[in-house]
Amino acid sequence: MTDVTQNPILEGQAPYPLLVVISGPSGVGKDSVLMRMRELGFPFHFVVTANSRPQRPGEIDGYDYHFVSHDRFEEMIAQEELLEWALVYGHYRGIPKSEVRQAIASGRDVILRINVDGAATIKRMAPEAIFIFIAPGSLDELRHRLSLRRTETPEEIERRLALARHELAQLSLFDYVVINHEDRLDEAVGQIRAIIIAEKQRVYPRRITL
Amino acid sequence: MTDVTQNPILEGQAPYPLLVVISGPSGVGKDSVLMRMRELGFPFHFVVTANSRPQRPGEIDGYDYHFVSHDRFEEMIAQEELLEWALVYGHYRGIPKSEVRQAIASGRDVILRINVDGAATIKRMAPEAIFIFIAPGSLDELRHRLSLRRTETPEEIERRLALARHELAQLSLFDYVVINHEDRLDEAVGQIRAIIIAEKQRVYPRRITL
Repeated sequence: MTDVTQNPILEGQAPYPLLVVISGPSGVGKDSVLMRMRELGFPFHFVVTANSRPQRPGEIDGYDYHFVSHDRFEEMIAQEELLEWALVYGHYRGIPKSEVRQAIASGRDVILRINVDGAATIKRMAPEAIFIFIAPGSLDELRHRLSLRRTETPEEIERRLALARHELAQLSLFDYVVINHEDRLDEAVGQIRAIIIAEKQRVYPRRITL
Repeated sequence: MTDVTQNPILEGQAPYPLLVVISGPSGVGKDSVLMRMRELGFPFHFVVTANSRPQRPGEIDGYDYHFVSHDRFEEMIAQEELLEWALVYGHYRGIPKSEVRQAIASGRDVILRINVDGAATIKRMAPEAIFIFIAPGSLDELRHRLSLRRTETPEEIERRLALARHELAQLSLFDYVVINHEDRLDEAVGQIRAIIIAEKQRVYPRRITL
């Protein structure tokens, strides 16, 4: 027998838990995809990110975010407790490694939603993760979806589209690309489900170590 | 844009057709898996192999096998028209490349069932194929299944089990392993379906050239 018998499924055991990174341009529908996966009861640990901005009314600590102080966040950065972080408009936001570690240790798959730059960072920190790029059906579809939000000015929309072109060029960092066509959310979600099932059947499964 | 834009799905086109090789030890249920996939209407071209033995009553040429003469078969070998072939009890059996080529050219995925040695040959001829190893839940399950057939003597069953151990050691040639537990055929078929969907979402899709 060769070393491939290290594969747990051949020993009748559960496959290694996966770290699945869902990324893609702004407006492509990453949140809708994740919400739908949650609705459908995908047996996942959805990562709660840490945030240094003040908690808003109605937000639940530990559900919407882990609310931590600015100082505590900088301590977490210094102690390399974060898988990835960013400073956005003066507030920190990031993914605590402990969130991922605990879920993996308890045998649960972990899913996280992040922008393309963040995915590139995670690729360096955890190359064994599964990287899925959500792409729009076309740039016109993306423009339409961004305009529906009514939160961005026309200039802001054009800026986001230019960024999306840049992000598409980073596709080579990813393992899979799933097109989230307008009105075909369940098709995209079904493809993500298939990717997760398939990855668990690999002869050489990927194993997360953080 | 990088060369990943060669990916047809990003251009709104159909993904490249796949060549899916289903293999595994004798008695593991490869035929049951394929029959079930056929019943469920998987949109596949199921490869018809060429055979030099005489056609039996009830067998349909071009459906059960392509029946060709011994001489014609040796001509096909000489002209490298076969993806893989074997001489079994004095009769030739093999997979015509044209079968695979025509299906791929018409945009259909191709699935073929073959023993582990045959899969190793195809791996050399068509490394871009998807290789799926069907494994038994355990060697005891395999023994049970072989004994249910009532076509093998106890000695023959033990010989096949020894061969199965040898075949399991060749797992490293394969991309995926699917366990075909007794009474859980649809689970195995569902995993194969997921593998096929996932492979079509690869950022760098595999493209068959023969």
